[in-house]
Amino acid sequence: MSTLPAGAIEAAIAAAEAAGTVIRPYFRAGLTADDKSDDSPVTLADRAAEQAIRAIMAARFPQFGVIGEEFGDQRSGRYNWVIDPIDGTREFITGRPTFVTLIALVEDGVPILGLIDQPVIGERWLAAEGRLDFTSRFGGRIGCRKRARLDQAELSCTGPEWFDEPQLAAFHRLEAACRRASWGDDAYAAGLVALGEIDVIAEAGHKPWDWAASVPIVAAAGGTMCDWSGNPLHLDAEHDGTVLILGDPGLKGAALAALCASPC
Amino acid sequence: MSTLPAGAIEAAIAAAEAAGTVIRPYFRAGLTADDKSDDSPVTLADRAAEQAIRAIMAARFPQFGVIGEEFGDQRSGRYNWVIDPIDGTREFITGRPTFVTLIALVEDGVPILGLIDQPVIGERWLAAEGRLDFTSRFGGRIGCRKRARLDQAELSCTGPEWFDEPQLAAFHRLEAACRRASWGDDAYAAGLVALGEIDVIAEAGHKPWDWAASVPIVAAAGGTMCDWSGNPLHLDAEHDGTVLILGDPGLKGAALAALCASPC
Repeated sequence: MSTLPAGAIEAAIAAAEAAGTVIRPYFRAGLTADDKSDDSPVTLADRAAEQAIRAIMAARFPQFGVIGEEFGDQRSGRYNWVIDPIDGTREFITGRPTFVTLIALVEDGVPILGLIDQPVIGERWLAAEGRLDFTSRFGGRIGCRKRARLDQAELSCTGPEWFDEPQLAAFHRLEAACRRASWGDDAYAAGLVALGEIDVIAEAGHKPWDWAASVPIVAAAGGTMCDWSGNPLHLDAEHDGTVLILGDPGLKGAALAALCASPC
Repeated sequence: MSTLPAGAIEAAIAAAEAAGTVIRPYFRAGLTADDKSDDSPVTLADRAAEQAIRAIMAARFPQFGVIGEEFGDQRSGRYNWVIDPIDGTREFITGRPTFVTLIALVEDGVPILGLIDQPVIGERWLAAEGRLDFTSRFGGRIGCRKRARLDQAELSCTGPEWFDEPQLAAFHRLEAACRRASWGDDAYAAGLVALGEIDVIAEAGHKPWDWAASVPIVAAAGGTMCDWSGNPLHLDAEHDGTVLILGDPGLKGAALAALCASPC
């Protein structure tokens, strides 16, 4: 059984609010993006927001480790915060209000608290202890959607450039088996799975900070997440960067079969 | 010289507001999408919103033609309204607040008024007589961005499934020449070109209602639009469905050269 440390929810909220305060003035403000070694963009806002989050976590839980996209892996002990100050930096630097701040608390490798925050239009998903809260002025109902068959499913993906050639072929098989595909929006789309708006997400090239916050959120809404071989996502396990999100866990077999041309 | 009919701006705004009133209750409300003959989705909200827009145009400008995505082409005479009640139906049915209502007034085949409206989060671009207004609570500055070179440019595209095989190859050449690509958001992304957030958009499979409203908006912000052969977009001309949007018209030659492997 997981044990949520007292004050963890409050710390995650405080950290998201601090990050939002840092990020908002940079939105649509002509910020320059640098290219990182993996070719993904990063801005001043990413770095400043991660520092704001880390400052709060260090003050409130000095004994916990922190793994962040911009300032590295300082994991230690049973509990680790896993954070992405701006998930969807491409959306952020192109003025789309669908980038998100991601904060997860991981216990023994398993995410037990997840927060997805969109600080510009003000939407937030927060899950802990199997319960999901969603706040938005724009509607949406908590709960993944049941789909009897994959050909009824809305598939989403951030962008095809994240796939290598075999992954792109696998994605195309999954796309052909689903009703239709839509593109963009990173972990914001995972939040939309938890609202029953999207049924399946397939991504590649993911790091722990890309998927950790979504795991408790999707699970609390009735869905499930795994890699493209069906293995659960675990901070301490080998991971090939593939992520599959299913609003209806009953679609897992069909989705994995579509991704794998030969038995896998 | 184009002549904007008196009352056209007020009619476009009234129509957008009526469409928004129709659409908002359907957002994230579990609407079912039907597949049209071209495989694109359509909902009750698309149809009801187009009827609301048409009712206003018929009452205010009974002599003008109307061309809409859902109820066909009733073009007539010098002035025609060209409307898409929900551009980005894929975004709409997956709960993303980046679908838009598009309204254009076309004079002798040339768009002279353009309106892009996002009715959920409340953002609106309106251009007529060379002037652009943008209203949003979330920031953004009017004006396309100057880019000396294509390799500094942010490229955007709704999704790769709109391209046939030669178009996909052409897009990949353009993508390789640009700084990076991001995905999704249809004409909302054209609005972001007018804010200097995105530099280049390349789309295919476009109908007049997909591009007409963006033309005056991008032009008023300093950018330009054409097809992938460099021809201006004109309602009465043959059109292969390709659209190229450039925030900086100086990039047009380089972008067209990238799209065309051989001279074209």
